[in-house]
Amino acid sequence: PQTVCIFGTGDFGRSLGFKMFQCGYSVVFGSRNSRMSSLLHSGAEVFSYSEAAQKSDIIFIAIHREHYEFLRELTEDLNGKILVDVSNNPKINQYPESNAEYLAQLVPGAYVVKAFNTISAWALQSGALDASRQVFVCGNDSKAKQRVMDIVCALGLTPLDRGSLKAATEIENYPLQLFPMWRFPFYLSAALCLFFFIYCVIRDVIYPYVIENKDSTFRMAVSIPNRVFPITALTLLALVYLPGVIAAILQLYQGTKYRRFPDWLDHWMLCRKQLGLVALGFAFLHAIYTLVIPIRYYVQWRMRNTTLSKVITKKDDPFFTSTAWHSDSYLSVGILGFFLFVLLGITSLPSVSNMMNWREFRFIQSKLGYLTLILCTAHALLYGRKRFLSPSILRWYLPSAYVLALIIPCTVLVIKFILIMPCINNTLKRIRRGWE
Amino acid sequence: PQTVCIFGTGDFGRSLGFKMFQCGYSVVFGSRNSRMSSLLHSGAEVFSYSEAAQKSDIIFIAIHREHYEFLRELTEDLNGKILVDVSNNPKINQYPESNAEYLAQLVPGAYVVKAFNTISAWALQSGALDASRQVFVCGNDSKAKQRVMDIVCALGLTPLDRGSLKAATEIENYPLQLFPMWRFPFYLSAALCLFFFIYCVIRDVIYPYVIENKDSTFRMAVSIPNRVFPITALTLLALVYLPGVIAAILQLYQGTKYRRFPDWLDHWMLCRKQLGLVALGFAFLHAIYTLVIPIRYYVQWRMRNTTLSKVITKKDDPFFTSTAWHSDSYLSVGILGFFLFVLLGITSLPSVSNMMNWREFRFIQSKLGYLTLILCTAHALLYGRKRFLSPSILRWYLPSAYVLALIIPCTVLVIKFILIMPCINNTLKRIRRGWE
Amino acid sequence: PQTVCIFGTGDFGRSLGFKMFQCGYSVVFGSRNSRMSSLLHSGAEVFSYSEAAQKSDIIFIAIHREHYEFLRELTEDLNGKILVDVSNNPKINQYPESNAEYLAQLVPGAYVVKAFNTISAWALQSGALDASRQVFVCGNDSKAKQRVMDIVCALGLTPLDRGSLKAATEIENYPLQLFPMWRFPFYLSAALCLFFFIYCVIRDVIYPYVIENKDSTFRMAVSIPNRVFPITALTLLALVYLPGVIAAILQLYQGTKYRRFPDWLDHWMLCRKQLGLVALGFAFLHAIYTLVIPIRYYVQWRMRNTTLSKVITKKDDPFFTSTAWHSDSYLSVGILGFFLFVLLGITSLPSVSNMMNWREFRFIQSKLGYLTLILCTAHALLYGRKRFLSPSILRWYLPSAYVLALIIPCTVLVIKFILIMPCINNTLKRIRRGWE
Ligand SMILES: Cc1cc2nc3c(=O)[nH]c(=O)nc-3n(C[C@H](O)[C@H](O)[C@H](O)COP(=O)(O)OP(=O)(O)OC[C@H]3O[C@@H](n4cnc5c(N)ncnc54)[C@H](O)[C@@H]3O)c2cc1C
Ligand SMILES: Cc1cc2nc3c(=O)[nH]c(=O)nc-3n(C[C@H](O)[C@H](O)[C@H](O)COP(=O)(O)OP(=O)(O)OC[C@H]3O[C@@H](n4cnc5c(N)ncnc54)[C@H](O)[C@@H]3O)c2cc1C
Ligand SMILES: Cc1cc2nc3c(=O)[nH]c(=O)nc-3n(C[C@H](O)[C@H](O)[C@H](O)COP(=O)(O)OP(=O)(O)OC[C@H]3O[C@@H](n4cnc5c(N)ncnc54)[C@H](O)[C@@H]3O)c2cc1C
Ligand SMILES: NC(=O)c1ccc[n+]([C@@H]2O[C@H](COP(=O)([O-])OP(=O)(O)OC[C@H]3O[C@@H](n4cnc5c(N)ncnc54)[C@H](OP(=O)(O)O)[C@@H]3O)[C@@H](O)[C@H]2O)c1
Ligand SMILES: NC(=O)c1ccc[n+]([C@@H]2O[C@H](COP(=O)([O-])OP(=O)(O)OC[C@H]3O[C@@H](n4cnc5c(N)ncnc54)[C@H](OP(=O)(O)O)[C@@H]3O)[C@@H](O)[C@H]2O)c1
Ligand SMILES: NC(=O)c1ccc[n+]([C@@H]2O[C@H](COP(=O)([O-])OP(=O)(O)OC[C@H]3O[C@@H](n4cnc5c(N)ncnc54)[C@H](OP(=O)(O)O)[C@@H]3O)[C@@H](O)[C@H]2O)c1
Ligand SMILES: CCCCCCCCCCCCCCCC(=O)OC[C@H](COP(=O)(O)O)OC(=O)CCCCCCCCCCCCCCC
Ligand SMILES: CCCCCCCCCCCCCCCC(=O)OC[C@H](COP(=O)(O)O)OC(=O)CCCCCCCCCCCCCCC
Ligand SMILES: CCCCCCCCCCCCCCCC(=O)OC[C@H](COP(=O)(O)O)OC(=O)CCCCCCCCCCCCCCC
Ligand code: HEM
Ligand code: HEM
Ligand code: HEM
Repeated sequence: PQTVCIFGTGDFGRSLGFKMFQCGYSVVFGSRNSRMSSLLHSGAEVFSYSEAAQKSDIIFIAIHREHYEFLRELTEDLNGKILVDVSNNPKINQYPESNAEYLAQLVPGAYVVKAFNTISAWALQSGALDASRQVFVCGNDSKAKQRVMDIVCALGLTPLDRGSLKAATEIENYPLQLFPMWRFPFYLSAALCLFFFIYCVIRDVIYPYVIENKDSTFRMAVSIPNRVFPITALTLLALVYLPGVIAAILQLYQGTKYRRFPDWLDHWMLCRKQLGLVALGFAFLHAIYTLVIPIRYYVQWRMRNTTLSKVITKKDDPFFTSTAWHSDSYLSVGILGFFLFVLLGITSLPSVSNMMNWREFRFIQSKLGYLTLILCTAHALLYGRKRFLSPSILRWYLPSAYVLALIIPCTVLVIKFILIMPCINNTLKRIRRGWE
Repeated sequence: PQTVCIFGTGDFGRSLGFKMFQCGYSVVFGSRNSRMSSLLHSGAEVFSYSEAAQKSDIIFIAIHREHYEFLRELTEDLNGKILVDVSNNPKINQYPESNAEYLAQLVPGAYVVKAFNTISAWALQSGALDASRQVFVCGNDSKAKQRVMDIVCALGLTPLDRGSLKAATEIENYPLQLFPMWRFPFYLSAALCLFFFIYCVIRDVIYPYVIENKDSTFRMAVSIPNRVFPITALTLLALVYLPGVIAAILQLYQGTKYRRFPDWLDHWMLCRKQLGLVALGFAFLHAIYTLVIPIRYYVQWRMRNTTLSKVITKKDDPFFTSTAWHSDSYLSVGILGFFLFVLLGITSLPSVSNMMNWREFRFIQSKLGYLTLILCTAHALLYGRKRFLSPSILRWYLPSAYVLALIIPCTVLVIKFILIMPCINNTLKRIRRGWE
Repeated sequence: PQTVCIFGTGDFGRSLGFKMFQCGYSVVFGSRNSRMSSLLHSGAEVFSYSEAAQKSDIIFIAIHREHYEFLRELTEDLNGKILVDVSNNPKINQYPESNAEYLAQLVPGAYVVKAFNTISAWALQSGALDASRQVFVCGNDSKAKQRVMDIVCALGLTPLDRGSLKAATEIENYPLQLFPMWRFPFYLSAALCLFFFIYCVIRDVIYPYVIENKDSTFRMAVSIPNRVFPITALTLLALVYLPGVIAAILQLYQGTKYRRFPDWLDHWMLCRKQLGLVALGFAFLHAIYTLVIPIRYYVQWRMRNTTLSKVITKKDDPFFTSTAWHSDSYLSVGILGFFLFVLLGITSLPSVSNMMNWREFRFIQSKLGYLTLILCTAHALLYGRKRFLSPSILRWYLPSAYVLALIIPCTVLVIKFILIMPCINNTLKRIRRGWE
């Protein structure tokens, strides 16, 4: 079997060695003190760094960057060898150059390849490779890179070639990130939630307390969240489709698609997926909070009360077909909207979207996406139908929250409607096709 | 770094060039007018077509097929080079031969490889490679193909080898398709929905209007969809398992599994997955429409009314254990059926099914699939239990819709039950094992 | 095109040949009787085994192991050839050595590679490659292995290198497994369900029958499952996080992380994912059973009754804000817990978890996981709030079931709370970092 060398008998060196041993490699370790440790897998051999380097033409440097210095003395032994830099830093952009480039400077005669830094020692050891099996690889020598990628494959991991060693900085930053694309959607939705929560508390809790001295604090547990969540969902959903129409207007205005968008628009367009999924989350919460309504003590009490008051006043309880239509239609439209929403979510799963061609993906995301927006907006419009314009719903001059929620969706839909009118649409299509 | 050449500075050429530049390649463009355009990435060089061809041994032809003619004059420059055909056509099967084969005819001395046509210029440019990252590759020369596949990998895409250049037709048609496998299930379910909708409107809206002059149009918003959707779901679910039993009967009858099935059966069997998922969609809708029932104005009004009439008539409201059993059991069975249904859906996700071995997949899809069918059928049977045979449910001689819905599922289950009886099952197993 | 040879014109040989033919290979068969069969694809050629062997340097042995004997006579023809062993056994570990190793013994001069045994003949034939597209490959000669892996790729399948021929045993056992990792979670949850079902039947059905002679059997359809399922879900969820704290205590006690955990703990830790997903399944069932509550006959009858009794006794029906708070808060907390639970489930989908880096995955699974546990425990605690300590809920000295359900979660949370106190946490971190 092929022999590989690992420098450093620390946590990562050991785990990697063990995994490689399992996959049929013969492993030699280089260490400061070359006695065999009981922690290494049986069959492993430990040598001094320079001895170990001679046993194999591929060497994994499982040492922290701070200690790389001593490799400078080994330049001769390492000449012509493939050095695999696996190191990470504790902070993003800690050093001016990436660890791998630093290594390449230290040992100019070696072929440095960056790889394996995204894999955790613990995952290698325990076999629970649940998070990313992707190993990003980069390096200037393509043969050396190929050798490393073959080893990656042999360990059951997926190599991803990222080009030359310049990419090392990015690769080293990758494992330190925590959901960079989700940050903006997250903060945005948190801000929206907070705003609407306070808005609703003012209208639904403080106002009745001040005016009627009624204690409605309990509304903060279910009723108000069930206002805040759908409103946030609808707003976010509209914000997914807003950048598209802004981009279209910009392109129409500039008459070309080759001028770059402003940065904020670019960034916004790139996190639409995340915005959409967060919106789906809120819609999901809305759905469950809604379905739970009839179980609530307050609702059951209200129903009993209504019945009792009818009994007492001996009034009739006539059936209004129009009310039935109203109630049923907004529910029905909401359910259909939610269904399409979920469909959008399912098709964003990487494995599903990967099965579709571009045309199909656009069809779902753009056509069905707009249909979702239309249905959800219609749902909210229908829900508020009667109350919408009545002044009686103003409390301290504040309109009902859903009135605010409808502003952005309606705007987006109206602009989109204008944009798809044949004359404008054709101009736009011409611009996007590249005929200037 | 490696140099590649791109013919054509159009939309796709530019986007591809930019992406390759990012991934560490050095890119030269061939163009009709060889002045540098501001739209190209910095560092790009533009030459005449013949000059550019000499700079690299691999050339991407980012030109529409209609303009290929001029390449005939470059045969000398292109001799021995790898030509990558990236072109698409606006329509399926527009030309007798595929574009790549046409290119190979034009430039007989070159190695033509088809690739990249499934990737959109916009996706390359914006980095939003959400839909397919798969690049289908085909070509007659395996070394040339390997070269192209290496580039595909280096761009972070997934190459899929499709064999010789004959496969180009298929590859060129691929991006023009819009859910070909979903078409039949979609039309079938649309037809079923329409039929049952009209059926239910006749029974539940027109009949009461004619007979009692009662306006029940509001039922069309929730009540009737909540009849139509589960019925369609159940029928489609049964239609997923029907071809299996038909196939078994055919095989038993013919005594061999090596006679081909009729075409319709073959096609039907291949779109069972899609049928099943559409059925799941309808079942999902049924579930939500059902859970929303107690929120509806009509239902709340009816409940109040019942209570009021009890108050007025001063009748007792005794509790019937058998009714409770009935109501609870059909709900419980329906929920369990739905749960298994969702499980079937989850295991159809490409990434999940890919983690299972064949035996596990068959176990879920076939065994649990039948259990799902049994539970769903039982749910509908239990629901209609009492009313099932009573003549009072006939309206204009039309039975309740769910009676129709039960025909196919019951048939499938009965035949399946016969097929798994030991004697028949053994014969079938023998046939399928290959012992004729 | 490249020529490959297949020994055996049985089911698998034929299907494989057909597939390879489709992908551009030229296929020759070796068979006991070398007449062309109508079942083979057109263009196939059939020869005697020894003749066929000479046509290609790569030979697929599509023959059952029992019949391998005759290959011994062909050693000369097979010398230096690549033999691909595709065979499976009917039972796990049926023979002392794997089929591939046996083949290598029989034909010492050939390069034996194990592959394709996980692919079903029927799947190859019908194109419905839904279950695993992964082809595990192992062999001692890396060039031979590479050749086979290239073919695997060319057929549109995914090769996975598993190292030397020693891995063949494992590869041969793989297609015979039926959810090995799910077995323990499944039996555990079945046992828990059964226990709690009986417990609840005693308390909720037998007790009222004995004491009040009341027939509550109907509770077994919905009410009791809706007690058993959430309790099982909560217990399983706690059991997901229990091994982590046990491991931490062990590591603290031993002062090192390099001592192996006892076997049971190791196994437990490796099936936490499965435990968690089963818990999610039960939580899902609980959610639907809960949402269905207001549709049940029993519940509607009870509501009518309550109203009627209020009418008759003419008592007031006052509104208790504290009860409203109580009811709304446990619902709200439960919904949020369920939402995070679903999020954990979504991030376990292989394609999603593969997109995350290790830090992100740990964040979701560990941080949000504990938050889920906290919310779900709080939900159950709040639900039982008042009744929790009251002796009136004891029936035959048996407390309510949810009291039992809370034992493990609370224990886990308390220990975890102790473990994350700065002093202990720092020690633990030091131990886990590898500084002993
Ligand atoms: C639940 C949910 C899930 C989602 N999942 C995803 C997801 O997985 N992936 C994803 O990307 N989005 C996702 N989204 C976001 C959204 O659905 C998509 O971004 C959608 O495609 C936007 O549609 P649009 O018509 O506004 O976009 P676009 O058509 O993209 O917007 C128009 C603008 O895009 C540019 N553009 C588009 N095509 C071209 C072209 N050919 N040439 C030049 N310019 C072009 C133009 O600048 C144009 O002005 C999701 C949304 C939701 C609600
Ligand atoms: C929600 C949902 C999701 C679904 N997802 C999928 C999916 O992802 N993928 C999918 O394929 N299906 C999917 N289905 C469809 C369905 O579950 C499967 O097709 C299921 O396997 C059919 O079971 P069966 O027992 O009828 O099939 P089969 O056993 O396949 O039907 C029997 C017939 O198949 C042939 N056959 C099967 N095995 C052999 C063999 N070894 N040798 C020769 N002939 C054989 C025979 O001709 C036989 O007559 C889904 C269904 C639902 C409801
Ligand atoms: C719905 C659901 C889905 C789930 N899906 C998954 C899944 O897809 N994949 C999955 O793995 N789990 C999954 N789980 C299980 C669970 O969420 C995870 O196992 C979770 O990571 C456990 O968190 P913890 O903090 O207890 O684990 P840990 O932190 O892993 O537990 C601590 C112990 O782990 C060991 N350990 C951890 N890191 C190190 C280290 N760096 N060095 C040394 N030792 C270390 C130590 O022995 C330590 O004592 C799922 C659970 C649920 C409920
Ligand atoms: N742990 C992970 O999960 C993980 C994941 C990805 C990448 N990495 C990277 O892998 C590398 C090693 O990480 P690790 O976790 O294995 O670290 P570690 O446990 O601290 O081991 C570091 C090893 O470096 C060697 N070394 C050489 N000169 C040294 C010096 N002057 N001082 C200290 N040690 C020296 C030591 O080996 P000898 O005693 O044998 O000389 C020591 O065991 C780091 O670059 C890290 O970023 C780790
Ligand atoms: N756009 C996509 O999303 C996409 C996706 C996949 C595949 N493709 C394929 O890529 C190819 C190019 O598409 P494109 O979108 O880049 O088209 P385009 O923008 O119209 O560009 C075509 C280019 O072809 C060159 N060309 C050479 N001879 C020509 C002639 N006689 N008339 C016109 N142009 C001539 C021109 O480049 P010079 O001016 O430099 O000579 C022109 O820029 C097509 O085959 C297309 O099917 C495109
Ligand atoms: N079927 C599957 O789904 C599947 C999946 C994975 C792996 N496999 C493996 O593929 C191999 C073949 O399976 P199969 O399903 O094709 O089996 P099969 O249909 O029974 O075919 C076996 C073939 O072996 C040949 N053979 C040579 N000597 C023989 C002898 N003495 N007695 C009987 N047959 C002899 C025969 O071909 P000639 O008549 O041409 O000599 C026969 O057609 C097995 O090792 C199996 O484990 C099968
Ligand atoms: C139940 C409905 C869904 C409820 C919850 C919706 C959750 C929405 C939030 C998803 C968050 C995913 C975190 C991903 C982490 C990450 O970084 O993941 C990273 C990846 C890749 O991201 P990039 O493309 O940015 O690299 O993101 C994903 O792949 C996200 C896929 C999420 C798919 C959600 C699918 C929802 C399907 C719901 C179906 C069932 C609905 C049933 C309704 C009753
Ligand atoms: C919420 C339950 C689900 C509700 C909706 C069900 C949707 C059913 C339709 C799915 C349509 C997928 C379009 C795929 C487009 C495509 O061509 O996709 C193409 C791919 C590949 O198809 P081929 O195998 O034909 O190549 O298809 C798929 O992979 C489809 C996978 C769909 C998986 C659905 C999983 C549902 C999981 C639900 C879990 C949560 C349930 C929660 C219940 C409360
Ligand atoms: C609807 C909520 C979900 C309801 C049901 C939850 C099902 C839980 C059980 C999942 C069983 C998966 C069987 C896998 C078979 C297998 O071996 O699969 C094998 C693979 C790989 O396993 P290994 O890691 O052990 O190799 O397992 C998986 O990948 C399991 C992924 C399951 C993901 C479940 C995701 C649920 C998402 C729900 C979203 C929508 C929620 C909507 C709420 C209204
Ligand atoms: C399962 C599907 C859905 C159902 C059953 C449903 C039901 C309801 C109900 C009953 C209300 C009234 C709530 C109340 O009385 O306080 C409501 C309000 C609302 N819904 Fe939905 N809905 C669904 C999906 C959606 C979706 C997908 C969206 C959009 C993203 C949405 C947006 C809204 C909005 C904005 C309101 C007004 C909130 C308010 O101010 O009270 N709904 N919905
Ligand atoms: C969440 C799970 C489910 C619940 C709670 C549920 C509940 C119900 C209810 C309450 C009814 C009566 C509807 C009415 O009064 O109009 C019903 C009817 C029905 N259900 Fe379900 N069901 C579920 C799942 C399913 C599934 C998975 C199927 C099959 C695919 C199914 C098929 C049917 C059918 C065919 C009817 C009869 C429709 C009619 O004619 O009214 N159900 N279900
Ligand atoms: C959709 C979200 C949820 C809702 C609406 C919900 C609602 C409820 C309701 C109404 C009850 C009282 C049931 C009864 O009266 O018999 C209950 C009980 C309970 N729930 Fe949840 N729940 C949810 C999620 C969860 C989750 C995720 C868990 C934990 C895994 C959980 C654990 C429990 C437990 C242990 C009980 C006590 C069961 C008993 O003994 O009756 N719930 N829940």
